[in-house]
Amino acid sequence: VSDVPADADRVLADLAELAELTSDANGAQRLTWTAPWSEARKWLTSKLAELPVEVDVDEASNLWATLQGRDERALIVGSHIDSVPGGGRFDGALGVVAGLEVLRRLSADGPPAVSVKLVDFAEEEGDQSGMSLFGSAAAAGTLEVELLQANTSYDGRPALEVLREAGVALEVIDRARTRLEGAVAFVELHIEQSTRLEHAGAAVAAVTGTAGVDRHHIRFAGRRDHPARPMGERADSLVAAARFLTELRALAQEHDASTLCGHLVVEPNIPLVVADGCGLTFDIRSFDTAQLATMETAWRELADRVCAAERTTWTSEPRWRIEPAAFDEELVQLAAEAIEELTGAPAPRLGSPQLHDAGEMARAGIPTVMLFVQSVAGISHSKDEFSHPGHLRLGIQALDRVVSKTLARFDGAQPQPSNPLLKRAL
Amino acid sequence: VSDVPADADRVLADLAELAELTSDANGAQRLTWTAPWSEARKWLTSKLAELPVEVDVDEASNLWATLQGRDERALIVGSHIDSVPGGGRFDGALGVVAGLEVLRRLSADGPPAVSVKLVDFAEEEGDQSGMSLFGSAAAAGTLEVELLQANTSYDGRPALEVLREAGVALEVIDRARTRLEGAVAFVELHIEQSTRLEHAGAAVAAVTGTAGVDRHHIRFAGRRDHPARPMGERADSLVAAARFLTELRALAQEHDASTLCGHLVVEPNIPLVVADGCGLTFDIRSFDTAQLATMETAWRELADRVCAAERTTWTSEPRWRIEPAAFDEELVQLAAEAIEELTGAPAPRLGSPQLHDAGEMARAGIPTVMLFVQSVAGISHSKDEFSHPGHLRLGIQALDRVVSKTLARFDGAQPQPSNPLLKRAL
Repeated sequence: VSDVPADADRVLADLAELAELTSDANGAQRLTWTAPWSEARKWLTSKLAELPVEVDVDEASNLWATLQGRDERALIVGSHIDSVPGGGRFDGALGVVAGLEVLRRLSADGPPAVSVKLVDFAEEEGDQSGMSLFGSAAAAGTLEVELLQANTSYDGRPALEVLREAGVALEVIDRARTRLEGAVAFVELHIEQSTRLEHAGAAVAAVTGTAGVDRHHIRFAGRRDHPARPMGERADSLVAAARFLTELRALAQEHDASTLCGHLVVEPNIPLVVADGCGLTFDIRSFDTAQLATMETAWRELADRVCAAERTTWTSEPRWRIEPAAFDEELVQLAAEAIEELTGAPAPRLGSPQLHDAGEMARAGIPTVMLFVQSVAGISHSKDEFSHPGHLRLGIQALDRVVSKTLARFDGAQPQPSNPLLKRAL
Repeated sequence: VSDVPADADRVLADLAELAELTSDANGAQRLTWTAPWSEARKWLTSKLAELPVEVDVDEASNLWATLQGRDERALIVGSHIDSVPGGGRFDGALGVVAGLEVLRRLSADGPPAVSVKLVDFAEEEGDQSGMSLFGSAAAAGTLEVELLQANTSYDGRPALEVLREAGVALEVIDRARTRLEGAVAFVELHIEQSTRLEHAGAAVAAVTGTAGVDRHHIRFAGRRDHPARPMGERADSLVAAARFLTELRALAQEHDASTLCGHLVVEPNIPLVVADGCGLTFDIRSFDTAQLATMETAWRELADRVCAAERTTWTSEPRWRIEPAAFDEELVQLAAEAIEELTGAPAPRLGSPQLHDAGEMARAGIPTVMLFVQSVAGISHSKDEFSHPGHLRLGIQALDRVVSKTLARFDGAQPQPSNPLLKRAL
């Protein structure tokens, strides 16, 4: 472990500079492929130009900066600089700018044991393509290109049109996978975007994995009718949907999962007409593949039960599914040690109910870990997102230590195929 | 009671002719002030031209045809010839065309004891003005003209624009009230649009009144949030609305009321964003003013309870309110007798959960009664609306008898201010 730690204050100053450049009164506006995002990339590139690194943008618009090591294998740090419309200043940007600082610190030390790459994944938020983790999924080879056909951007444009205008060629996007060749570890620093660390009074946590997600659209079909129809004879699709929605949450509570429905559309949506159709999109999350499977059975039974009671019928379409991604146990251990050395307290270990680029790296077989910094009140995807500077500094230093500890495992050693860190990457 | 009853088959033939003229493959298209409605009015006027009646259209577009009696007082029969987009052939039209036949039958008998007026109320369906019972409310003096300001037609045009183009002058619409001067009774024949008669195996019922309606828009306000927020910490306005909707129905069941919500809008309505707003319009109906008041207290307590549990808040706006209208006990008795004479079975007596022009006449102080004809499967506001011809014939004959029985009360008698039928009209 280096005795000259990363300069956390410089990271905070850089983040403030980036926010100044790419935000308005409503927050960060770094939507992938827009002018503020290009501005952010230009800013990042100018910072990297001061370092002995090679910069490259892959077929999925991910930016890679490589500090050549004594070995062709690579440790990757990074996150995403893109934001939602009206986002916060730390979501994604923290991990990229902290990674830049790690590169700065390592550049001063001469070539590291293995190459160290900083990655800024494109379109993590998915607002432009309708597909979260776009860039990291492309690099991992898990991007489901055919789903893009039906997707739209947050402002309603066809995803394929947005991609075409951005110059992203889907027919060659799979070549982004070559950037992961030789990768032996991936480390991502990110804000928590939830309240567990705040409740625990902790600044930083080691993250053990990302949740699996199962997302469906369900449509209840009833019978268009008039208000004089006795309630007990109606086939009211909106009542069926309301019952489903209410009871789905209780099911998730039982099964250690969580669920969210933010999208519901009533047809014909006229006050005095019993709705003959009601469609909603719901999302189920769990860290446990078995619980996700149980929930799938349970919500289907719930839909059957509600429809039998409400004289309605239902159909569903899968919208997205991603398996839980478990992070690397040894890297999680290194991360916890780094946090404990810095804070003098046991490091919380927790799973991430949100998806992150790190999940895609883990699914690609790269030993992966994340560090979470406490978010005040869990507010995120908002200009009101905030983390205390002291907590951010600890997070940045912990990232730096995890990188050093990981590099130390390769230091002076011959390539060791039996090294557990390599077991899935080689 | 006349020995030459109305010709029910001619009514059915007239209705078929009217449907042929003013329907398309999707059903009746007689929206007030549109070309098919004008066509229907032209058709009706041509039929009336064969009779010794005076025809007049009032300031609210209601059509009146008066058969002068031996007395200036008037018995009114009628309903509405307008339809919803894609409506049935009997909803409204039955009462107008049957009333036409009653005028035909009476015309042959010489001047009746009191004048008999046929009315075709305009815009009962409210699809053009956003206001059900438009014409009868104008005649009754209960039209809330100021509410029209915010209303839109079914196809989204401002109600005031629709009215202006139709030549309806709101500043003089109150003059329509003069057409009710001297009214001593109002009788309306209508299809049931529900299933109670079918369940009871009965063709025709005497209607005891129309329900009161209390309609509100309620908006639940939560906090926009992301899926990683633990479910128990979210302020999810859609979940609050779903609970409210589900439990509101149970409340109505407890209080002998009915409720319907056909309109719900989620904000921002994005799958992975906890909804910060959810608004819905709901309608509560009861025949009992006290139950309506109890429901008002109960739904407000329910909204408070749901919001306390879901960390949300609520606001509401009244959208419409109309008190229950009780029909005249003696006219209901005459109607029941007429039905019993025709069917040889006790006449069902039931309230109408739907609003009807007759409710406005009762609220205007005119002794009122309605007759309902069985609707097959309760289907209405649809081209699939149907009533058996045998049931329609009985309904038409019952209307004719109620008119005769009512007229008989005035026959040869001097004006009797103490006559209960006159108590509210004089």
